[in-house]
Amino acid sequence: MWAFASDGDLEEGVSGEASSLAGTQELGNLVLVYDDNRISIEDDTTVAFTEDVGKRYEAYGWHVQHVDDGEDLAAVDAAFAAAKAETSRPSIIVLRTIIAWPAPNKQNTGAAHGSALGDDEVKATKEILGFDPEQTFEVAPEVIEHARTAVDRGQEAHAAWQEDFDAWQQSNPDRAALLERMTTRSLPEGFAQKLPSWDADRKGVATRKASGEVLAALFPELPELWGGSADLAESNNTAVKGEPSFVPASRQTKMWSGGPYGRILHFGVREHAMGAIMNGIALHGGTRVYGGTFLTFSDYMRGAVRLAALMQLPVTYVWTHDSIGLGEDGPTHQPIEHFAALRAIPGLDVVRPADANEVAVAWRTVLENNDRPAGLLLSRQNLPVFDRGDAGSAEGVARGAYVLAPASNEASGGTPEVILMGTGSEVQIAMAARDRLEADGIPTRVVSVPCVEWFAEQDDAYKNEVFPPTVRARVSVEAGVPMGWREFVGDAGRIVGLTHYGASAPYTVLYEKFGLTDEAVVAAARESIEAAASGPGVPAGPVRATGGLPHPTGDR
Amino acid sequence: MWAFASDGDLEEGVSGEASSLAGTQELGNLVLVYDDNRISIEDDTTVAFTEDVGKRYEAYGWHVQHVDDGEDLAAVDAAFAAAKAETSRPSIIVLRTIIAWPAPNKQNTGAAHGSALGDDEVKATKEILGFDPEQTFEVAPEVIEHARTAVDRGQEAHAAWQEDFDAWQQSNPDRAALLERMTTRSLPEGFAQKLPSWDADRKGVATRKASGEVLAALFPELPELWGGSADLAESNNTAVKGEPSFVPASRQTKMWSGGPYGRILHFGVREHAMGAIMNGIALHGGTRVYGGTFLTFSDYMRGAVRLAALMQLPVTYVWTHDSIGLGEDGPTHQPIEHFAALRAIPGLDVVRPADANEVAVAWRTVLENNDRPAGLLLSRQNLPVFDRGDAGSAEGVARGAYVLAPASNEASGGTPEVILMGTGSEVQIAMAARDRLEADGIPTRVVSVPCVEWFAEQDDAYKNEVFPPTVRARVSVEAGVPMGWREFVGDAGRIVGLTHYGASAPYTVLYEKFGLTDEAVVAAARESIEAAASGPGVPAGPVRATGGLPHPTGDR
Repeated sequence: MWAFASDGDLEEGVSGEASSLAGTQELGNLVLVYDDNRISIEDDTTVAFTEDVGKRYEAYGWHVQHVDDGEDLAAVDAAFAAAKAETSRPSIIVLRTIIAWPAPNKQNTGAAHGSALGDDEVKATKEILGFDPEQTFEVAPEVIEHARTAVDRGQEAHAAWQEDFDAWQQSNPDRAALLERMTTRSLPEGFAQKLPSWDADRKGVATRKASGEVLAALFPELPELWGGSADLAESNNTAVKGEPSFVPASRQTKMWSGGPYGRILHFGVREHAMGAIMNGIALHGGTRVYGGTFLTFSDYMRGAVRLAALMQLPVTYVWTHDSIGLGEDGPTHQPIEHFAALRAIPGLDVVRPADANEVAVAWRTVLENNDRPAGLLLSRQNLPVFDRGDAGSAEGVARGAYVLAPASNEASGGTPEVILMGTGSEVQIAMAARDRLEADGIPTRVVSVPCVEWFAEQDDAYKNEVFPPTVRARVSVEAGVPMGWREFVGDAGRIVGLTHYGASAPYTVLYEKFGLTDEAVVAAARESIEAAASGPGVPAGPVRATGGLPHPTGDR
Repeated sequence: MWAFASDGDLEEGVSGEASSLAGTQELGNLVLVYDDNRISIEDDTTVAFTEDVGKRYEAYGWHVQHVDDGEDLAAVDAAFAAAKAETSRPSIIVLRTIIAWPAPNKQNTGAAHGSALGDDEVKATKEILGFDPEQTFEVAPEVIEHARTAVDRGQEAHAAWQEDFDAWQQSNPDRAALLERMTTRSLPEGFAQKLPSWDADRKGVATRKASGEVLAALFPELPELWGGSADLAESNNTAVKGEPSFVPASRQTKMWSGGPYGRILHFGVREHAMGAIMNGIALHGGTRVYGGTFLTFSDYMRGAVRLAALMQLPVTYVWTHDSIGLGEDGPTHQPIEHFAALRAIPGLDVVRPADANEVAVAWRTVLENNDRPAGLLLSRQNLPVFDRGDAGSAEGVARGAYVLAPASNEASGGTPEVILMGTGSEVQIAMAARDRLEADGIPTRVVSVPCVEWFAEQDDAYKNEVFPPTVRARVSVEAGVPMGWREFVGDAGRIVGLTHYGASAPYTVLYEKFGLTDEAVVAAARESIEAAASGPGVPAGPVRATGGLPHPTGDR
């Protein structure tokens, strides 16, 4: 595996995170060629980057070579050979080069970094190199001929490989079939039958815990599934008991053993590298990888998440501790804006299951989608397992939103007077509000919305079935900023959410103090029913979410 | 300056970025004590963190000391003294400790990292330390007495300092007044009169360039203002010509000289550290700091931006190249979801000026707000400077949204038939659409919405003046995901935006191919007028933004 990096790449923290981990993992097949030209966009890197990169990589446990003249091809070749020969640890070659060499005026300048050389400088450079300065897009015949020998060499090598591979396939039909399945990212038939299910239970189970049970059930079925956490394995429930860790023999510990190079990854406290490494694993192909951290730390890996969405990579984020429901860790750890901010990323599926049974369908659906990344947003706290009664199973998760509890008048062909909707841990609040409203004679439907993106993909018939257009009284409840919910609730609707940061307290206290309660949803429902009845209404206008900490009494 | 860090802190990339820069900047007053206990939440760090930290900091140019026994207080004291004595470079002390020492069962385990010891282990630990295991919250009188001597010492030291300070104030009244002004973060009277203004001009000027001119005008007025870029000074227009750089004498270059330690910062390609350093500067107090990068890279610094909002720190982000309008750099560099994702952060002001004159008012307002962070979203491409004619100045920017162009019938007391709104580079599209609609006899108002957060803070009277509730035909246009605009346009409104990533092409081609045109806005306006006329309408429902790259023809 060859990687080429510039000064800028090695200034970015993510490369430090990944390189340190590569050293720990003794990745002997990795060679990093560092183009040490000491020029970045702000020109001479002396103002910002003066460290001894080679020494830093020695500190990471890498094999380090220096080539002082990047034009000395024999030295470069020798360094490449030595790097390949070193298989017990990753290798870096610090290759001193001159940017834009041998352009007479722009070599070794920031100008050559950000802009094209321009006609005059290109001509002057050609002159120095012994080319006709007026000739463009001209390649000498002997260069073409030499280059084409590489094609022949490649074809021969490929043919030889193919022969070996065909023979291997013939004598290993089972493994060949598995390889074929993994390469095409198809899933084994019936794998979903191994998924656990949970009986209705008011005390319930944390969705992170349910996720861990799903992983434990799937690991024997799906050898392509592997993953880990950025140092939060036990909190994220990402480590399957008894599975060996992806560490070399020398790095095994009392807690993590049984390897080397098993299926549980230890990323360390390095969320951005975790995201980038997951992308690399997905681009390599063949396996399905997941990685966990607290939802609030998804911010640190956001650059990598965006690239996964842009590249349509089927990686899965296990983001637990998904709201103020995490309690005492306080506002730095409590996601508020993250639901909206992640839903904003085009091509990312943001899935927030409301109970354990929704978790199982969510995981299944995520695995069935092999052309996009997804994040599972999971609770730290226990969530009741719903008694689905007549409404049936949690299958509706796969469609992004579904009727969890119909209004009492629906069985007799009636229409709900109001629709309550929510995600994750707030669906139980909608359910409790429904009980109150129904007790007051207001037919109330509850819709669980585990994934806005999956719902947006449904046809209009299904969308109108879940949210009948005539029912304009609607309330959403989610422990985050209101952004995005107006699309669902409309001008007559109400949004129950948070417009400020969290606080450190037991989660039940926070929900109460911050007004995420069934009483608040009931009040919002009554408002919305009135608004819907009194005409078309007006656009709601934006809400200001405030910085700083909420008032100690919980007043907003 | 003392900093204390754990294994996890030193695994995170941001600490590597900041530490490398601290080495370059020769920050001799910084001492970092590294609590090297080799335990993180996943227990023994051997599985993920095996690098030689001391050597890494040597590579950064730091002074490195090792103390092999964290309980050897004499050795710790000597290391602290040596670190303080070293003033030409930052210092790290690698302090080998045992987590939860001397707890008999839980010392040196991950369990001691994430959870409390528990009653039994606390008792056992007290026994080892020679305390009564049953006694809690008990401090021996001699300990209290000794601790209180520190209070006396502090009071004496403070009194001596106050005397010196009072004397300095008396003999330096001008500098004392400046210090007072800077400490309280108040602005000098009349500073805003120095702001540049621009005449109407169809060819116009890039808002990033206007921002650079604003900074150049403000630098002489506001000595507290300083900042820089993550290696994009020229692109972000963050370096004021002739201003010395914040680098030591030894790090000056041909391009960046005149220091040492001037007002232009060079963060290197380290966005996350830039954000964190800006927070540190703001927490220190006294100055106002800004930092620039491309808007899409705001993702890398998002963790620091969130903390700035949570801590209400008045730092300013100069985020340029703010849309597909940056052109050829392509989808990795083109923000799509960033407007929405940043607006989701509670307490952050997201300001996207539509022309150069809006930039000046935006900067002024940002500086006047000294209790919150703000991001300026600026264009790479030229934007026309609007002829404000009757509508007056760009003062409305400070209120977040304002009428840039009234409908033709408003002068005679009429009501607009439709309201078009936009931000930044898309306001010109709304203006062009207005011309077409007016030509067709449809009275059309254009509202510029440079800052949703500032608008949300206005009173209802002003909000209803800008967006009269009776006008339900509304269209927004912004080169990003639709999220958030439904609040403004309502059920009858239409949102012209992007629901996919960008592409590499000249920006005019991208706007055309992706349907961000005045024709599209006109069509949306006609739809919205019809929808508003035909009754209350229904909630719009969510839109799916897709991953991957858009179809080469620009079809969505």
